[in-house]
Amino acid sequence: MSAPETLGERGEFGFLAELLPRLASSSALLLGPGDDAAVLALQGPLAVSTDTLVEGVHFRREWSSARDIGRKCVAVNVADIEAMGVTPVALVLGLSAPADTELTWLREFYAGMAEEAERAGVVLAGGDITGARDITLAVTVLGDCGSRRPVTRAGAQPGDDVAVCGELGLAGAGLSALSRGFRSPRAAVERQRCPEPPYGQGVVANDAGAHAMLDVSDGLLADLDHIAAASGVRIDVQRERFDIPDAVRSVAAATGADPARFVLTGGEDHALAATFPAGTAPDGWRVVGSVLPADTSHESDEAQPRVSVDGRSFDGAAGWDHFGARSSR
Amino acid sequence: MSAPETLGERGEFGFLAELLPRLASSSALLLGPGDDAAVLALQGPLAVSTDTLVEGVHFRREWSSARDIGRKCVAVNVADIEAMGVTPVALVLGLSAPADTELTWLREFYAGMAEEAERAGVVLAGGDITGARDITLAVTVLGDCGSRRPVTRAGAQPGDDVAVCGELGLAGAGLSALSRGFRSPRAAVERQRCPEPPYGQGVVANDAGAHAMLDVSDGLLADLDHIAAASGVRIDVQRERFDIPDAVRSVAAATGADPARFVLTGGEDHALAATFPAGTAPDGWRVVGSVLPADTSHESDEAQPRVSVDGRSFDGAAGWDHFGARSSR
Repeated sequence: MSAPETLGERGEFGFLAELLPRLASSSALLLGPGDDAAVLALQGPLAVSTDTLVEGVHFRREWSSARDIGRKCVAVNVADIEAMGVTPVALVLGLSAPADTELTWLREFYAGMAEEAERAGVVLAGGDITGARDITLAVTVLGDCGSRRPVTRAGAQPGDDVAVCGELGLAGAGLSALSRGFRSPRAAVERQRCPEPPYGQGVVANDAGAHAMLDVSDGLLADLDHIAAASGVRIDVQRERFDIPDAVRSVAAATGADPARFVLTGGEDHALAATFPAGTAPDGWRVVGSVLPADTSHESDEAQPRVSVDGRSFDGAAGWDHFGARSSR
Repeated sequence: MSAPETLGERGEFGFLAELLPRLASSSALLLGPGDDAAVLALQGPLAVSTDTLVEGVHFRREWSSARDIGRKCVAVNVADIEAMGVTPVALVLGLSAPADTELTWLREFYAGMAEEAERAGVVLAGGDITGARDITLAVTVLGDCGSRRPVTRAGAQPGDDVAVCGELGLAGAGLSALSRGFRSPRAAVERQRCPEPPYGQGVVANDAGAHAMLDVSDGLLADLDHIAAASGVRIDVQRERFDIPDAVRSVAAATGADPARFVLTGGEDHALAATFPAGTAPDGWRVVGSVLPADTSHESDEAQPRVSVDGRSFDGAAGWDHFGARSSR
């Protein structure tokens, strides 16, 4: 029996020659992959975002299948365009991988990308493949603003409702389970392997009049702090307004953790969080808090936290930093 | 004396907070870095290309300064948009680096990027920073087609002149010198550290009516083979039409190599190569060959090579592959 063929044996050009004809197309893609650049028709301004996933930092081949990793690198990137309230259209991928990477792994990875891209409504417009010690997936995602004004982090106003769309806490609970060597509960572990952003809801929120929005990648409280800081406001969320998924409760029970901690501080779910004029959050969004005026009482000994839970600081609310430093934004 | 501060000590958010305010802006950049996505106004369709530079594969920190590496990752990417004959406008960078990377190195790197971006007429619209074992620079570059039709690799026609703009062979000769432990000749070594694409000449070629174009990254003969294959033609170049730079001659003399080999097969110069209707190549372009009809004489024992030099095959014309496999396109 011969050993499985590797990327190094086939070469980048050989593998690309196999891959390119299999990629989906779209009417917006005026010129697909294979030339010096792809060409894409847009109806309005371009939204662009980039995120790199590194083996050992953002995924592990022993925890996730190639297909899951392919899906994840689409999902986490498309969520950034959803978070602007505009339409995701395409992505490009810079893949770096060791020469001994098996082609079967890469084929499954690209199949996962294609599957999630179809779900998200985007096409793979281009990319390159190069050698490296670790697998690195650098994805740039492109969105079309059309006639919509993008929703930034800076527009939240006192009196707004704070609402979320998509489940929170599952990916963090899944990481906690995987880190302890468990492969269950399935709902949490699968969400860690690949988040499920609420595709299409970014535009829904924008059209409903969202004042500010982002996707929850660092943990809800840390991410709401980005909105509060950019908008010059405070945000309070109410613990009892959250729906805690069963899988989160079960991981919390097994590890002696507070289930609310996964929901409030767990990262990588890529749900959407937004602020809306009071009472206007659209169907499918859950109101979890409210926007308050900035704390201007400089004379007080204890300044109000920028983001609070039931009016008080939440211990350990800082987000994830890829170098282990705690975010102090 | 305290040790220099590292990326791991500062954290990605801390370093980005220092970096973001220093980035240049442009009127096309409707929303700059710092939100979930940047937003860019375009006049026409988007051209997009991505290229990843990996430490140890595309650059070495012991051969190149941080500034040179920053310049190089802009130059090689912008050249892809120039090669489409449209206007480069912006780029995004996914930087992966070890936690012990010194901030002084990163500051120099970003200064080099900013310097080359200004030269190329583009702005840094966004990016992210993450941890990894090796430095990986994933750049996606964005161009605006405006009202221009992009120039692909597939439009070359029999009878066209083949012309190049920018010098060839210097980067390859520089690599040969550096590999042998030399730091000279300076013109070659500097070009290896950072190529100098002929910014602006892509649009000039397009407006002059170029039929096909690309940038020379793999080596002229290998890259012309891409045009010949995509266009269904053959290409012949004439050796005496090339200008061989002095620095290439001197590396060739010192290493016993054929100087024409650097010019014809050396990669990484990122000059432009295009085909034009006979006699119409614009000023600043050097005609080096011509486009011929495809070889249809299937009865002959010896098929014509798709790209020839003075009518004959050139030994070793295949291009660079990042896994060491030879390109067989």
